[in-house]
Amino acid sequence: MVWYGWMDALPHLDHGSEVPLYRQLYEQFAERIRSGELGQGERLPATRELAGSLGLNRTTVSAAYEMLEAEGMIAGRVGKGSFVTAALVRGELALAGRGPAPHGWGALLERGEAAPLPAALGRETISFATSWPSRELFPLDEFRASCAAVLGRADLADILQLGSPAGYEPLRRHLIEEARRQGLAGAADDLLITNGCQQGLDLVGRVLLRPGDAVAVEDPVYPGLKSLLTGMGARLAAVPVGADGMEIPRLVRVLERERPKLIVVTPDFQNPTGATLPMAARRGLLEAARAAGVPVVENDPYGELRYEGQPLAALKQLDANGGTVLLRSFSKASFPGLRVGWVVGPKPLLDRLRHAKEAADLHSDQLSQAVLLEFAESGRLEAHRKRLLEAGGERLRVTLEACREFLPAGTGWTRPEGGMNLWVSLPEPLDAGELLPRAQKLGVAYLPARYFAVSRQEPGGLRLSFAGLEPQQIRDGLAIIGQLAAAELASARPSGEPATAMV
Amino acid sequence: MVWYGWMDALPHLDHGSEVPLYRQLYEQFAERIRSGELGQGERLPATRELAGSLGLNRTTVSAAYEMLEAEGMIAGRVGKGSFVTAALVRGELALAGRGPAPHGWGALLERGEAAPLPAALGRETISFATSWPSRELFPLDEFRASCAAVLGRADLADILQLGSPAGYEPLRRHLIEEARRQGLAGAADDLLITNGCQQGLDLVGRVLLRPGDAVAVEDPVYPGLKSLLTGMGARLAAVPVGADGMEIPRLVRVLERERPKLIVVTPDFQNPTGATLPMAARRGLLEAARAAGVPVVENDPYGELRYEGQPLAALKQLDANGGTVLLRSFSKASFPGLRVGWVVGPKPLLDRLRHAKEAADLHSDQLSQAVLLEFAESGRLEAHRKRLLEAGGERLRVTLEACREFLPAGTGWTRPEGGMNLWVSLPEPLDAGELLPRAQKLGVAYLPARYFAVSRQEPGGLRLSFAGLEPQQIRDGLAIIGQLAAAELASARPSGEPATAMV
Repeated sequence: MVWYGWMDALPHLDHGSEVPLYRQLYEQFAERIRSGELGQGERLPATRELAGSLGLNRTTVSAAYEMLEAEGMIAGRVGKGSFVTAALVRGELALAGRGPAPHGWGALLERGEAAPLPAALGRETISFATSWPSRELFPLDEFRASCAAVLGRADLADILQLGSPAGYEPLRRHLIEEARRQGLAGAADDLLITNGCQQGLDLVGRVLLRPGDAVAVEDPVYPGLKSLLTGMGARLAAVPVGADGMEIPRLVRVLERERPKLIVVTPDFQNPTGATLPMAARRGLLEAARAAGVPVVENDPYGELRYEGQPLAALKQLDANGGTVLLRSFSKASFPGLRVGWVVGPKPLLDRLRHAKEAADLHSDQLSQAVLLEFAESGRLEAHRKRLLEAGGERLRVTLEACREFLPAGTGWTRPEGGMNLWVSLPEPLDAGELLPRAQKLGVAYLPARYFAVSRQEPGGLRLSFAGLEPQQIRDGLAIIGQLAAAELASARPSGEPATAMV
Repeated sequence: MVWYGWMDALPHLDHGSEVPLYRQLYEQFAERIRSGELGQGERLPATRELAGSLGLNRTTVSAAYEMLEAEGMIAGRVGKGSFVTAALVRGELALAGRGPAPHGWGALLERGEAAPLPAALGRETISFATSWPSRELFPLDEFRASCAAVLGRADLADILQLGSPAGYEPLRRHLIEEARRQGLAGAADDLLITNGCQQGLDLVGRVLLRPGDAVAVEDPVYPGLKSLLTGMGARLAAVPVGADGMEIPRLVRVLERERPKLIVVTPDFQNPTGATLPMAARRGLLEAARAAGVPVVENDPYGELRYEGQPLAALKQLDANGGTVLLRSFSKASFPGLRVGWVVGPKPLLDRLRHAKEAADLHSDQLSQAVLLEFAESGRLEAHRKRLLEAGGERLRVTLEACREFLPAGTGWTRPEGGMNLWVSLPEPLDAGELLPRAQKLGVAYLPARYFAVSRQEPGGLRLSFAGLEPQQIRDGLAIIGQLAAAELASARPSGEPATAMV
């Protein structure tokens, strides 16, 4: 059977059924694969194409494909589509190509992959593509002084010996006391050290998710979360993000329809939009989560980098119900190359996360934990944070000014009050992904919307990560993006002669 | 239905069927749960009890229970058994207790856990329980000098900035060049930095395993591997370890019967037995793996700690077929508190591992990577390894002497040529687990066989981790274990009067 022939044999979907459409689609594909109607190596129709033919949302088709993939029936290859990998023998899955040759890694590895970042990124003079702090701001002397203090300590050998999965105890105690003072941890809570927020997300997923589970996530969202969750076989249930962060009425609908097992949200300075969830929305989110019985993962890598406006209470502070787990990190406010973050949450969950942490990598690196504790306790972290807030505030202001000055009329952008990222929406018919190679030729990089998209496509969208750039670089970079966008707009909308009629 | 009533309604198993017994068992339980015959909260019979009633190996029952657990139908509670968690509604799983209260973490967390180590361990004067190097041997001045060199470098800011998922490039290059010189890496191989061997195992599992897959492992085996794999929903297919390591004829049978997706093996100084796989067995293992098309994970944390005898080629060196992936680490030969290890293997697999690494925690800590590179390149690592080899060799000799001198007649033990562990088999009817609390009261700890057992129970077995102890502590500790064992033997086998007949 050739795949374009599929169009003549579209799956029959029952929109009135209680069985969700993605599952109906999954079952019909699975049946055709099992029966051999679809043979090994055959390509499935592109999700976009099939969604169009069936009048479905593309996410619905993707969810069905992800289930097939999670069961090893199909495999996606980047840029090439999805292929049938396996034949079912006696109800057991026989991996395609599974033969006597173990060097046939291809067959063993045919699971889907998130699209990697463009290979050329990173060599530009002015890169808005990476959401990290400026290396020029690293307080190297203070870092050296913190290391020297640790190296001079009598318990240095303990730091170098195998440690506890919960973390280096002096750092753990410091952080939990701080969390208690800030109302982020109560008597029922515990704290676990992780390798940054990313590992916090990973451990929570390992403990709470199984393949096929849905997770409510912001759309657009940080690509590292997308690839982590899809790698676990989870389905992404997209909740749109507006100027005020995750849209709560949409979350409520997603909770009803997709029954996610988890909500992952970044209430402060969300990546990629920079949006912050207002107080009422925080309460609404917690209430919706409570009503649905779904835990909330508050991913908060940027919360301590507020440049203006009033700080808002964290979900973890507001949640009297014990359904929230908070992820934080030293990375953004100190040194991202040291991988130290932490999780604060209810003890029963933290017990399980600690076991998962031990299974994952025994414990986090203790040298960095000890150095960061010294950096914090000596007051150097707070002094550095003040400098970061000043520098970040200036860069944010310069970015917003440069957006106004250089981007063509019709362009929209968010107005973050902190963090490292801002979202730009170029006017139609501009495509930020198509502009990127031209910007790169001129030495400027950014990430277009597709890296962050869950189900909402926004061709004109792009993320500007401003925190790692000097103010002059920000202006120069936005001037180039603005020129390219204006030129493209002019050629796309010739204002002079009317187009010749083709018919 | 009450569970002891089950004995009247035993599952009917067809031993002649091509459907494996564990799967028949799984299907019959699943059916009873689906039909409601087994309701939420009901306890399943203990695996040992059911295995006895059905005349099955306990592993078979465990495998069926693990499949039920992986599907969320039952949940294990440590020491309490397995319970039905869920009712199936319209083909979808409804989590037990899934209600409006998210603080109901218990219901969300009801998955099985590996038994934690005894809580009291670690406070004893003489602990044979931990397989780590002696902190007294840490070369602190050399460590400080390595740190100082890194802190003085012009590229310090790069080390502190976010890095690459593949690892700190200068270290990665150093390791891959070394691996090439040693014949451990060929042109088709790549290298990835991990947080020690444990994360190497985790990443390989994430990429190659799905819930329900079997993995061939040594029995007894390192508990961290057991909990990692069962946490992933994998089934452990036990291959007995003898004095010469994994028994290859048994591996061949396991490959045929259990069709594992992976073989994990420690050819040098296996944990817990200290056994080393001879050359012929290495070739036999690779041939069996090649014939079955199953990749081999060579977990090698101890290989560089050989105190006597000739080094043997690694599986990775012997495998011309590209089916082996090698895991190594700095932990055992330098500082376990710094979490830096690496994986060497075929590029297509390494590409996937790098993606999994990025999803798991972005990258390993760069400060420790830079310090360990300096430690290695300056020659300090090699100098330290020489001291470790001398000290380890002495401790091994003292341990073997003390075993001969203090352990009662009938006791067996392995004779490792390196590493950190040795296996003792106390004579019947001694139970090393029952002796432990008495040893702890006298200030001595070790881990009894049950922490390492996969399916083979050996009540008299225990692991002696000797590398972290002073020679005098080793002698004192073994004297105490020997006295306790001898006293227990004497009371269990009264050589004087015959026991009074009870009937």
